[in-house]
Amino acid sequence: MSPEEFRQAGHQLIDWIADYRAGLAGGPVRSSVQPGDIAASFSVDPPTEPTTIEHLLDQLDKVVVPGMTQVQHPMHFGWFPSNASLASVLGDIASSGLGGLGISWESCPPLTEVEEVVCDWMRTLTGLSSAWRGTIHDTASSACLVALLSARERATGFAQSGGGLSSVAEPPVVYATAQAHSSVRKAALLGGYGADHVRIVASDPATYAMDPTNLVELMAIDAANGLRPAAVVATVGTTGTTAIDPLPEIVVAAAAHRAWVHVDAAMAGTAMLLPECRPLWNGVEGADSLCWNPHKWMGTILDTSLYYVRDVEHLVRVMSTNPSYLQSSADGQVTQYRDWGLPLGRRFRALKLWFHLQLDGVEAIQHRLRRDLRNAKWLAAQVEETPGWELMAPVPLQTVCVRHRPSAEVGDSVLDAHTIAWCDRINASGEAYLTRARLDSQQSTGQSNAGSWMVRVSVGVEATDHAHVARLWDLMRREAEGTSQ
Amino acid sequence: MSPEEFRQAGHQLIDWIADYRAGLAGGPVRSSVQPGDIAASFSVDPPTEPTTIEHLLDQLDKVVVPGMTQVQHPMHFGWFPSNASLASVLGDIASSGLGGLGISWESCPPLTEVEEVVCDWMRTLTGLSSAWRGTIHDTASSACLVALLSARERATGFAQSGGGLSSVAEPPVVYATAQAHSSVRKAALLGGYGADHVRIVASDPATYAMDPTNLVELMAIDAANGLRPAAVVATVGTTGTTAIDPLPEIVVAAAAHRAWVHVDAAMAGTAMLLPECRPLWNGVEGADSLCWNPHKWMGTILDTSLYYVRDVEHLVRVMSTNPSYLQSSADGQVTQYRDWGLPLGRRFRALKLWFHLQLDGVEAIQHRLRRDLRNAKWLAAQVEETPGWELMAPVPLQTVCVRHRPSAEVGDSVLDAHTIAWCDRINASGEAYLTRARLDSQQSTGQSNAGSWMVRVSVGVEATDHAHVARLWDLMRREAEGTSQ
Repeated sequence: MSPEEFRQAGHQLIDWIADYRAGLAGGPVRSSVQPGDIAASFSVDPPTEPTTIEHLLDQLDKVVVPGMTQVQHPMHFGWFPSNASLASVLGDIASSGLGGLGISWESCPPLTEVEEVVCDWMRTLTGLSSAWRGTIHDTASSACLVALLSARERATGFAQSGGGLSSVAEPPVVYATAQAHSSVRKAALLGGYGADHVRIVASDPATYAMDPTNLVELMAIDAANGLRPAAVVATVGTTGTTAIDPLPEIVVAAAAHRAWVHVDAAMAGTAMLLPECRPLWNGVEGADSLCWNPHKWMGTILDTSLYYVRDVEHLVRVMSTNPSYLQSSADGQVTQYRDWGLPLGRRFRALKLWFHLQLDGVEAIQHRLRRDLRNAKWLAAQVEETPGWELMAPVPLQTVCVRHRPSAEVGDSVLDAHTIAWCDRINASGEAYLTRARLDSQQSTGQSNAGSWMVRVSVGVEATDHAHVARLWDLMRREAEGTSQ
Repeated sequence: MSPEEFRQAGHQLIDWIADYRAGLAGGPVRSSVQPGDIAASFSVDPPTEPTTIEHLLDQLDKVVVPGMTQVQHPMHFGWFPSNASLASVLGDIASSGLGGLGISWESCPPLTEVEEVVCDWMRTLTGLSSAWRGTIHDTASSACLVALLSARERATGFAQSGGGLSSVAEPPVVYATAQAHSSVRKAALLGGYGADHVRIVASDPATYAMDPTNLVELMAIDAANGLRPAAVVATVGTTGTTAIDPLPEIVVAAAAHRAWVHVDAAMAGTAMLLPECRPLWNGVEGADSLCWNPHKWMGTILDTSLYYVRDVEHLVRVMSTNPSYLQSSADGQVTQYRDWGLPLGRRFRALKLWFHLQLDGVEAIQHRLRRDLRNAKWLAAQVEETPGWELMAPVPLQTVCVRHRPSAEVGDSVLDAHTIAWCDRINASGEAYLTRARLDSQQSTGQSNAGSWMVRVSVGVEATDHAHVARLWDLMRREAEGTSQ
């Protein structure tokens, strides 16, 4: 395709996207597509003849769009917000158009240097000290894997450069609560720690935050048993209830064993753009690594996950490769991001943040975040003052965890069935989308079938204003209370 | 930013990209930017006021573009081709515009099902059997890590679900030649195998292909010493010289120990779109996993790395997480790609291939690949018939490895200095870009300072036609022969 053909098709596509985004709120949040429907509308055989952009846009309209779960829809309250702000979409388009190749500084100097600049900007904007240096990973899951690998190598005296993990005398151990993200357990298993060496630290029954006393106890027991406390993953804003693990106590407990502290602030990092929220991660300066996702609430389009470390030298020692075909005269003077993460090659991801910050402006983003916090508090207040409804956890951020109890004497299994039923009815209607989850789910042990069901209302889609949250609350009452009468 | 503001800015950006691509061949391949120059042109403090798209495009023109190493330039012959075909750029734009969230089938059904369809199309187009099922990873490095983790768990009887790698009696071992990509060693180290358990299999001194007899010997020695041969990484198209490891013999050797065979065809996979090239990966059906990068020579924009496996159940068992908040009624009927790789969340990457295949058409892509193969053969013939010049390796694909010897009696260190000097002169001129590399570089041992220097001419940028290759050859002769007289 020539640049002129691209110009023509590109203009059509931009119009298509603008129309799609403008019309999105008028359709359902979730489609009624069934498994296999979308695949079945395409030929099993690969296409042989080229086609036109008009045909592809028609296919997007007829097959792809009707199948989408619309996470940009103002009535989407599921999972966590996954905003794809149009300013950041422009940055992504610029990145694709430039077609840069990030395998070394030399292969695309601006790709590296804009990433450095933007990571520093984001550090400043979230009130972190200049002791941190950052990079952009694809997701918090990959960042967590990098953190646990870094922890493993520190705990084992760099076993990777010798006999590997099978040669270590004191098996390293990872600590997190049951509320930690599933990627913590996954990273520990992929990192070779083994399920036997993943400890579930108790969490407070009311706040779901890590109990640091239990952390101290578990570490002491492990150390006494010849194991090596290697890493604590502390979550600031857990997936279930946005619980905040107490960083100051965790940092002290970990220091006693020289264990790595990784802070997973995937969701809550965005809140740190607001100075008034920063007390939530007090103690973060004592951690070794830190991750948060602008591609969630802040709205820089996927995949934009910031990963900060205090000891770059250690990170590079764990992750480095330096084959001759990537060596150049600039080595030693520049950052080689290939040695900061898992993949060798990278896209020019920094442009997404660079465009987003500069086109929307930080103040507008802060304004939107404060709106979402207010809306969440409003919803939580409605829940608290309405008979039959209960808040299942504190609301430190923008996620409200609720349950509706049809009558005082209802049993656990009936209550669970009721919760699932009204949530599924709302989701099936296409009018709004919510996530149901098990509150005490032992995610980190892999036993995800324990605990009672609740419904998570995660406020924070860019297009969601107060009227949408009010409409949702009406819908929740109608579906939950209506059927219980 | 509203859809209407996006529409306006988007049209400006599309024009900017079209102009940039159309004008790219008129500028230097590589800029003379110095480390730190680009970062220094931005404020250390984050921007507070929003700005305009015009200002950002101006910054791209003044700071970013002049700093780019232009891998889309027709005179770029460095590393491997990293084509960002404009048809696939449109697919990427569509993906960004849609703003889908891939964390489960339910979160974006078309994201999953189009990926399945496209991976099947690509399997058919490269002549693979239907025993393979595929997914899209970011890079071949990540794919290699997934492969070595899968191999580790098979070899250790799923140690991850128990005591981890520190509990295994027979440490697992990885095998590859010194020509294997640096990501193999990195994956083995990150996977916990340890440097002591990465074996360098001998390669043929003329073809640089793996010596299967040596592989058999090394595995037997390790097994006799209480180690567990766990994985062989066979490369089809090595980074240095596009050497082709002999898959049939490797598969047989590995089977004797039930070792995993991962085929790294990152570069050569594209060639398999041509039926006449498929004998190069004869034996591939006996492998366990296979990776190749459409984002290289084929030209589907970064990051598009295909990863195929024969045993999906095993892959999912190694990679799976299933927290309650991601469970839905569709579970069991659908593919959950989060359990096929490292990150939980994914972009709608399949659209890049979907657009590329349908807008450009397979025949046009095949036509271009055959042009590149002819151009590489032509260059190789010039090198062979010109006194003082030598081919350093066979040319099975589109990469030509050369050296110029200023006189018969020149010593090794003088020859190396000469090679580096003429290559660096060409690169500094901006007229063309080539990669210098050490041929016998012991990449997989981490000792990348061994071996003699050569220059790699990697033909295959979309815009490169015969005239560009002929111009490069003139330039090479001028710079290498001119200074040796």
